[in-house]
Amino acid sequence: MPDPLRLGIAGLGTVGIGVVEIVVRHAELIAARGGRPIEITAVSARNRSQDRGADLSGFAWEDDPVALAQRPDIDVFVELMGGSEGAARAATEAAIAAGKDVVTANKALLAHHGQRLAEAAEQRGAVIRFEAAVAGGIPVIKTLTEGLAGNQITRVMGVMNGTCNYILTRMEGAGLPYAEVFEEARKLGYLEADPQLDVGGIDAGHKLSLLAAIAFGTRVSFSDVELEGIDRVSIDDIRLAADMGYRIKLLGVAQMTGRGLEQRMSPCLVPANSPLGQLEGGTNMVVLEGDSVGQVVLRGAGAGRGPTASAVMADVIDLARGTRLSTFGRPATSLAAPTHAKAMAPAAHYLRMTLQDKPGALAKIATVLGEAGVSIDRMRQYGHTDASTAPVLIVTHKTTRDAIDHALKGFAATGVMVGEPVALRIERV
Amino acid sequence: MPDPLRLGIAGLGTVGIGVVEIVVRHAELIAARGGRPIEITAVSARNRSQDRGADLSGFAWEDDPVALAQRPDIDVFVELMGGSEGAARAATEAAIAAGKDVVTANKALLAHHGQRLAEAAEQRGAVIRFEAAVAGGIPVIKTLTEGLAGNQITRVMGVMNGTCNYILTRMEGAGLPYAEVFEEARKLGYLEADPQLDVGGIDAGHKLSLLAAIAFGTRVSFSDVELEGIDRVSIDDIRLAADMGYRIKLLGVAQMTGRGLEQRMSPCLVPANSPLGQLEGGTNMVVLEGDSVGQVVLRGAGAGRGPTASAVMADVIDLARGTRLSTFGRPATSLAAPTHAKAMAPAAHYLRMTLQDKPGALAKIATVLGEAGVSIDRMRQYGHTDASTAPVLIVTHKTTRDAIDHALKGFAATGVMVGEPVALRIERV
Repeated sequence: MPDPLRLGIAGLGTVGIGVVEIVVRHAELIAARGGRPIEITAVSARNRSQDRGADLSGFAWEDDPVALAQRPDIDVFVELMGGSEGAARAATEAAIAAGKDVVTANKALLAHHGQRLAEAAEQRGAVIRFEAAVAGGIPVIKTLTEGLAGNQITRVMGVMNGTCNYILTRMEGAGLPYAEVFEEARKLGYLEADPQLDVGGIDAGHKLSLLAAIAFGTRVSFSDVELEGIDRVSIDDIRLAADMGYRIKLLGVAQMTGRGLEQRMSPCLVPANSPLGQLEGGTNMVVLEGDSVGQVVLRGAGAGRGPTASAVMADVIDLARGTRLSTFGRPATSLAAPTHAKAMAPAAHYLRMTLQDKPGALAKIATVLGEAGVSIDRMRQYGHTDASTAPVLIVTHKTTRDAIDHALKGFAATGVMVGEPVALRIERV
Repeated sequence: MPDPLRLGIAGLGTVGIGVVEIVVRHAELIAARGGRPIEITAVSARNRSQDRGADLSGFAWEDDPVALAQRPDIDVFVELMGGSEGAARAATEAAIAAGKDVVTANKALLAHHGQRLAEAAEQRGAVIRFEAAVAGGIPVIKTLTEGLAGNQITRVMGVMNGTCNYILTRMEGAGLPYAEVFEEARKLGYLEADPQLDVGGIDAGHKLSLLAAIAFGTRVSFSDVELEGIDRVSIDDIRLAADMGYRIKLLGVAQMTGRGLEQRMSPCLVPANSPLGQLEGGTNMVVLEGDSVGQVVLRGAGAGRGPTASAVMADVIDLARGTRLSTFGRPATSLAAPTHAKAMAPAAHYLRMTLQDKPGALAKIATVLGEAGVSIDRMRQYGHTDASTAPVLIVTHKTTRDAIDHALKGFAATGVMVGEPVALRIERV
């Protein structure tokens, strides 16, 4: 019998306990698959006395995750604490310095420090794997790093925050405004302690920046992700978009353009009958496009104990099998510093505005669009109860965000706008 | 610079040339990802003089694939000839005997000889990878073997023959009968030389048997796959199923039941609004279910030069990176001989029949169903132009295939049936 692979698990929240459960319940199965037994040597969490519903008495306890990371009797440091700084960062750095392999679910840590950690690990001959950091149970890191390794990746897209997708589909299904559904989600415990991580697109942006690094061979560059949250998506926009055959999703898109790497996380319209458009509730979906493979779509649970623990265990079993990959699929020192391209890829856009209901108002808007070089694909003017204003919906032909921003400025100068116009990208999927 | 990984490619059809193109076009990219250059040393095909639209002058030529497989200057034998016997089998066996790693797209070979080949390879320390053998560009072998390795797999399902899915969706879309669309597909070159491989479910059955071996740790057992082709699916059934909210797909299902391994490849009804139900044309979809991860759905191109070559290259780059897995995810000698369970898992069923339009006919049918222990969920009797017969549609509650077969026999004895009734499984997805 070969030597066991010995794990030290830091963080015993829902995912940590999920990992413990799999290691115990499926000991025989994962030993058969991994080619060697997988054991938990030691664990660490903030509060030792808390009842976590799992028997931890067989494992050594460390109060300090850094001490856990440095134990000579562990091979793999499993980091499930979360957070880009503090204990998670210190313990991960300590594990790497001690030559341990690291399996982590921590997207924030890698989004902020991935390059440094990857370089340090590769210098020490250690491996960092992070399947659980992106899209929960969906093996998207593996698919992108390995399954599509023969492709030049052309675009990566995804709905990777289940809470936002829950909020948007619930708004549509129940016809409720954002604020009300946000409050529901908060009460259901769906939101992070800092809800901006979810609804501001930060969490999903972290994930996108990791996918982009693998896809395009560039250093992780979270600060270059253009973030726009869902808090300004109105039930009106959801309804009007549906009326035109679209649904609104918080969609992450990374693509390499002629001017550099474009990374966006923003509410977008996608066709209602596309796989992304049909995605309901908390489910995640990632769309990967490569020059040979075309489009591959992956769908599954983006969070939760079982799915996230499944992803952690995939990484652990890979290590048991002797699979050793560079963090981002190629040596960290070979990753290029990305040139940041600000939303250059042209797209159709959805514009919603309210005009003063007086002669010539629409003509002024059309003139501004023409001057900005934006051409109109479809336009609808809706009936209105308020006799003095007219809601107008425009779907443009392909145009740049610059041209749209130019038009939005022009609208303000016409003197016929009521309130702020809304502009959302329509992503080709 | 580390030593290159040297390929010998046998078979220069559309996939073989696709692989050559990627190796040449993306030499730098795949060397960066694989950690070493990947080179083609030698190639082999039946006809040397054929113009394949690719420059092969830089590679040694072998008329005999066995000789290619044994060349001392290749590390990996890439088998893209196809067929379960003959040259493909002989050359693959020769490669393994010579200690070469094998990358193959050959589902028939592995479905029939996978166990022997895997044992031989593992004895020699050689690796067999076959991502391209199942579902084209979708990395389903990797997802199941590695990405979900922490799960007890509960069910594997898939639409894995693009030609059949094309025929079924085209019948529905154009309202055309099977024979006519079959002829169309033949003219378009979508069908194998022996069309039964496609429409008889054999090709998809090969793929299912490989997935089942990985999922359940059992020896590949293609002869235990219950095969039913699409040639008896009528446009009437497609229409009536749609009317009840379903679509008909050639669906492969493998699951471990209390009585053994069940493997079915048959036309099934699935909800029209499910991911499987929404699948159009030649696209493939695989649904993997595990006890921790829940359901993961993968969608992509199931055939064609680029997608299949992408899958071949994923295996090649894995080997360049030093990833070495057992063929079916655990040592071949540890795979269990599966107990074959004949369609035990209960399911709702769709029954269509035509009754003589006389008093008591429906009562006789209902009585037979009751006696067989089959209870009715929904029933519809359709209006009819022929005054003497009445088309009847029944959706049953969950029941076994045995009970359905029992009822079908009872129907025949009632004396009120016109023609043969149709019974199709409704798969829960």
